[in-house]
Amino acid sequence: MDKNRTEAFSDGVFAVAITLLVLDVNVAGPGHGSLAHQLWTIWPSYAAYAVSFLVIGIIWVNHHTLMSRLAKIDRTLLFLNLSLLAFVTAIPFPTRLVAQYLRAGGWNANVAAAVYSGVMMGMGFAFLAIHAWAGRHYELLDESVDPVAHRAATRSFGIGATIYPVILGVAFVSAAAAMIAHFVVAGLYVFDRTGPVAPSSDSIG
Amino acid sequence: MDKNRTEAFSDGVFAVAITLLVLDVNVAGPGHGSLAHQLWTIWPSYAAYAVSFLVIGIIWVNHHTLMSRLAKIDRTLLFLNLSLLAFVTAIPFPTRLVAQYLRAGGWNANVAAAVYSGVMMGMGFAFLAIHAWAGRHYELLDESVDPVAHRAATRSFGIGATIYPVILGVAFVSAAAAMIAHFVVAGLYVFDRTGPVAPSSDSIG
Amino acid sequence: MDKNRTEAFSDGVFAVAITLLVLDVNVAGPGHGSLAHQLWTIWPSYAAYAVSFLVIGIIWVNHHTLMSRLAKIDRTLLFLNLSLLAFVTAIPFPTRLVAQYLRAGGWNANVAAAVYSGVMMGMGFAFLAIHAWAGRHYELLDESVDPVAHRAATRSFGIGATIYPVILGVAFVSAAAAMIAHFVVAGLYVFDRTGPVAPSSDSIG
Amino acid sequence: MDKNRTEAFSDGVFAVAITLLVLDVNVAGPGHGSLAHQLWTIWPSYAAYAVSFLVIGIIWVNHHTLMSRLAKIDRTLLFLNLSLLAFVTAIPFPTRLVAQYLRAGGWNANVAAAVYSGVMMGMGFAFLAIHAWAGRHYELLDESVDPVAHRAATRSFGIGATIYPVILGVAFVSAAAAMIAHFVVAGLYVFDRTGPVAPSSDSIG
Repeated sequence: MDKNRTEAFSDGVFAVAITLLVLDVNVAGPGHGSLAHQLWTIWPSYAAYAVSFLVIGIIWVNHHTLMSRLAKIDRTLLFLNLSLLAFVTAIPFPTRLVAQYLRAGGWNANVAAAVYSGVMMGMGFAFLAIHAWAGRHYELLDESVDPVAHRAATRSFGIGATIYPVILGVAFVSAAAAMIAHFVVAGLYVFDRTGPVAPSSDSIG
Repeated sequence: MDKNRTEAFSDGVFAVAITLLVLDVNVAGPGHGSLAHQLWTIWPSYAAYAVSFLVIGIIWVNHHTLMSRLAKIDRTLLFLNLSLLAFVTAIPFPTRLVAQYLRAGGWNANVAAAVYSGVMMGMGFAFLAIHAWAGRHYELLDESVDPVAHRAATRSFGIGATIYPVILGVAFVSAAAAMIAHFVVAGLYVFDRTGPVAPSSDSIG
Repeated sequence: MDKNRTEAFSDGVFAVAITLLVLDVNVAGPGHGSLAHQLWTIWPSYAAYAVSFLVIGIIWVNHHTLMSRLAKIDRTLLFLNLSLLAFVTAIPFPTRLVAQYLRAGGWNANVAAAVYSGVMMGMGFAFLAIHAWAGRHYELLDESVDPVAHRAATRSFGIGATIYPVILGVAFVSAAAAMIAHFVVAGLYVFDRTGPVAPSSDSIG
Repeated sequence: MDKNRTEAFSDGVFAVAITLLVLDVNVAGPGHGSLAHQLWTIWPSYAAYAVSFLVIGIIWVNHHTLMSRLAKIDRTLLFLNLSLLAFVTAIPFPTRLVAQYLRAGGWNANVAAAVYSGVMMGMGFAFLAIHAWAGRHYELLDESVDPVAHRAATRSFGIGATIYPVILGVAFVSAAAAMIAHFVVAGLYVFDRTGPVAPSSDSIG
């Protein structure tokens, strides 16, 4: 199984998922008060859009980095990759839930943020599984990759991924705090090459 | 007709179709009871999403394997491939039907599962037609492919495809059983390299 | 401007447009009578889906063939190609109109079929313009392409394209006849390599 | 980070965003008066579709030109490119607002056109930032590119980009004038290789 078509398919899925997010940024339309007011009241849609866009963008970057370390893909990696894509394509659903329920607050907002956090956690763990599988099968790694360094990166990544169950717990206390946490974790990745989600040995550049 | 652009176009269609599935996973929204309860009542949406995601993912894998055996594509293969893609792009429609009607049960649920099974059957038969056509035109096969083995794989695949009319029949007895059967058949393919849908000579890795 | 990225972008647009068609195949859902009856009443959706899928599939094949004859793409071709893609991406709109209005009949059905035919005509003429422009600028053609044969193919294609205004006129007399005509014209292309839409010198294989 | 996958991902996003625009071209459907009349009343949808299609098409051309000047992509460019894509994927939202509110006129139409202009401005500035960053890091430029000429092109582009805040201001005076301005600016780019948005040194062909 050459990895080029897997990359092309994955890129297509990432591109479609990230572009579909905007379909859930909507106002009620004419007859529902001033547009300016409507635009204000849907701020959770913008927040959810921003967080999900950033998260999909970053997982795409991570996916690309990981793929560049592989020489080939075996059947297990292929289906682990499909699992990862299943969580990525699911993201518009919890994004919509957060957009619909965050503003009203209450228990529903907690549930929405928890579903969102659960999907993020699933995505993080699927990515971790791909990373770990590749590290345990040397023959899949590109010869330029040091297996020991790769496994160390897997461990760092695994430690970083423990943030997801924590945020899931936070969601039941404060939906807004959970969403801010997702944004901060993603933002850390962008600005901090040694952040918890992306060990420096795994970063691009 | 070089096959690269056919692969790229097919990959694009697979990627879009698999990502559109999530658009039909929806709750009624604020004002329709607790979110937790709504999330529970739409479980057929998750089930339909999971089965369809897995099926599209597997047909993508099969498609890739088949394409890698071809040296070139003739006009007939091009239009057979379009037929296959027509069934793939149709999948979100029966997926939505199952999500809408499975829970209520009754005859409507049977009809929804039957439409779903019919689309699966059409997809399987279109794939089989591509496989068979390539086997009957040696000049299309890559020189590394043994035509005799390819035709044997076609026969195995054809025997495996007889499961689809059976599931279509099951749909009229039990909608849930038909959907479980689709999930099991797809799951067998993932874990069993000698399963009915994917003869071992046709598997990747 | 190398043509590879233009092909990739165009393929992406074709793939998305052909996959979005299914979003407009819908039943009213639970509470609107038996599913079997609903599935029957939306037959114009299936017809419109089938015709539009076939048309986009064929224009993709034609686009690929034409691109394979070009050595490079100039600025004019780039924007002519964008015009073609504008009509391709528009197709889901008239497809939806036909699906909504064909069954009721009356003047609205004629208008829907006329809009559909107008978009087809625009697409055909944009394709013809690309074909003709390439024929008048030898330096754009691949060196394996005979400019005289290319221009002869343009003329054949242009004669074939006169069918579109005729179908547009037919739409005002009979919406169903116009849709059947689009299907037949597309079908002729699939089965007849010397049909009016695709001169044999332009066909693949 | 090799730039090929960044181009492929970006192309995917452009292709999906440009194709999603049509989902918001809609009539109310049967039971809402004659189709011909409905088709007339939604003219702002066509206008918004045309402007947004042209704008995405042109930014795709510009993006391609810029990418062809780069030898590699660093981490900063990667995230600047994600910022650009965030504005591109957002375009269907303000396009929908303009389609919904332009015809009614009044302050809501001004707000809709202002949101549209704001997204265009964000897109223009993100593009400018990519252009400027590449000019300040010689090692990212392809060796065939003259850094001095590249920076001159950045300055021209920056001067051209000042049109966006102006159009944003115009939107608060006349929504229609702002939309026409966006169309004219895009149209100038197509026909005038020395227009304000695309300095000639940056054009293709």
